[in-house]
Amino acid sequence: MPSATKDRILETTAELFRRYGYTGTGLKQIVSEARAPFGSLYHFFPGGKAELGVEVVRRSGRLYLELFEAIVDQASDIETGVGDFFAGAAEVLRQTDFADACPIATVALDVASVNEPLREATAEAFDSWIDAGATRLAAAGIAHGEARKLALTTIGGLEGAFVLSRALRSTEPVEAAGAAATAAIRSALSGSASSGDAFEPGRSDASAPKM
Amino acid sequence: MPSATKDRILETTAELFRRYGYTGTGLKQIVSEARAPFGSLYHFFPGGKAELGVEVVRRSGRLYLELFEAIVDQASDIETGVGDFFAGAAEVLRQTDFADACPIATVALDVASVNEPLREATAEAFDSWIDAGATRLAAAGIAHGEARKLALTTIGGLEGAFVLSRALRSTEPVEAAGAAATAAIRSALSGSASSGDAFEPGRSDASAPKM
Repeated sequence: MPSATKDRILETTAELFRRYGYTGTGLKQIVSEARAPFGSLYHFFPGGKAELGVEVVRRSGRLYLELFEAIVDQASDIETGVGDFFAGAAEVLRQTDFADACPIATVALDVASVNEPLREATAEAFDSWIDAGATRLAAAGIAHGEARKLALTTIGGLEGAFVLSRALRSTEPVEAAGAAATAAIRSALSGSASSGDAFEPGRSDASAPKM
Repeated sequence: MPSATKDRILETTAELFRRYGYTGTGLKQIVSEARAPFGSLYHFFPGGKAELGVEVVRRSGRLYLELFEAIVDQASDIETGVGDFFAGAAEVLRQTDFADACPIATVALDVASVNEPLREATAEAFDSWIDAGATRLAAAGIAHGEARKLALTTIGGLEGAFVLSRALRSTEPVEAAGAAATAAIRSALSGSASSGDAFEPGRSDASAPKM
């Protein structure tokens, strides 16, 4: 069976998880929306929905990580890059009428207590984001411990803002979270620049924090 | 039928939503764990699971709001109160082996796109928390617009930290979010004290921000 079918199943399932969660997504719905024969699902994923779920979480984790890296690479600095990422998330919410949240968050809330392989997949995806964010922040001159905390609160801030934005049908929570994340990064960069306790690869924009 | 049965149904359903989400919670599971006759569910909630869900979201919204107000009232100031609230959330996660997230967040992610009365109930609950937080922060001397943004990012930070903590089986995200929220409040209080652009009811602890 062509692997294009497998890709369509994975893409469709990720979209359904974003909108209805893991538990609320049915196998018939997946094959119908992916225009795939029912047998193809068990052909590609012999472990059924749980195996498919693990694959979708891993794939989404990689794709969002690549998106984050691409946006930060295009930006003039990490603070601008993080701000751009939040602005992009707000735009997707508007375009999808507040339907598309994070598929990994919905899986984590739905089944973290009852499906250990799926929980581990969500943990690995979040860990990869935390590591990537912390590495970027440390490279910008923030001490490693502080960089990890900032990565955690930035990612947590975005995930929580998705919850509020979906409920309130407003991008205000994502915008507020983006402003708070960039302000915290600016403040940490400014602190590291003045105290000089972190490695600073050629930073020259040590502007004052404006919170 | 005694209303104690109704209370047990509401309490049990809230716990099941925290662990399995709205979609993952079944009616048979509810009446079984609540030790209630099946007929009692439709006696108290003729609209079935959707009506029960709306009641549970409203009740949880009120209970967490009362808890927040009680913890802040006991604390010496708003910054300490918010820190205590996050510390309490981390303790509950540890005690429940990371099973208990927020029942309103799981409902919001599960059904915000497909059940408008339930989405409205989650929006009303979050709005009541945002208003209460903003009112407290404004009373402490922070300008109203800034107070609303701080309330939004504090609540969003907690909800997102629940997602990460459940996935990672660690309280680190909740602890980092609590530290970030109290640092942002401290910074806003310090800024309002120095710039004098907000009403300050007898504040004297204008300490420097430490981010």
